[in-house]
Amino acid sequence: MRKEPERTADTVQPRVIVLAEAGGRYQSLLQPPASVRLRSGCVVLNPGESVGEHSTEHHEELLVILEGQGEVWTESFPPMAIDAHHLAYVPPHSRHDVRNTGTAPLRYIYLVSLAE
Amino acid sequence: MRKEPERTADTVQPRVIVLAEAGGRYQSLLQPPASVRLRSGCVVLNPGESVGEHSTEHHEELLVILEGQGEVWTESFPPMAIDAHHLAYVPPHSRHDVRNTGTAPLRYIYLVSLAE
Repeated sequence: MRKEPERTADTVQPRVIVLAEAGGRYQSLLQPPASVRLRSGCVVLNPGESVGEHSTEHHEELLVILEGQGEVWTESFPPMAIDAHHLAYVPPHSRHDVRNTGTAPLRYIYLVSLAE
Repeated sequence: MRKEPERTADTVQPRVIVLAEAGGRYQSLLQPPASVRLRSGCVVLNPGESVGEHSTEHHEELLVILEGQGEVWTESFPPMAIDAHHLAYVPPHSRHDVRNTGTAPLRYIYLVSLAE
């Protein structure tokens, strides 16, 4: 008989997630119940577009920039320029926004993790 | 007078992190006190190399593969093939390892987040 994995939550399993080809608008990568708490997605912004101002609330957030150029604005701080092969960190309780300031699509992965 | 940011822990601030050029062995990207809890780093494995078996313990982990080919082994599950533009998720309390099965360097970002 095949040995069953010793897990309490059998929805939370190791998995590989394949990033969609560039061109889509948004791809959900990971969220409960596939994870315990971690959420991740891939966002594509066209030139001039922004995600829209919102708060990290009780979470901290890390962005991994895949392609394009933009800026991350966080309340009370100067805008931060982002480029391919940059990461951007946004602390909890931070109003923030991400804007494409370039001439090509801005594509990034975000990861949101409970901080408290 | 310049308005001060309203933060309790002034070490935890928005920041941009620049990924080092390919070639290095390891780059720490984020860890406390620069974050609240989130830890991240960039790992380079040469062909045939592996990180070494270890447990996620109370954390969940997400890998973002930047280049190369390999596999993620997790106890009680078949090895998962990973390639550039894949992500791999490893649940808490999972013994796991990452191995370069290709002929070029395997380069990935890991993110470790408290799950409990």
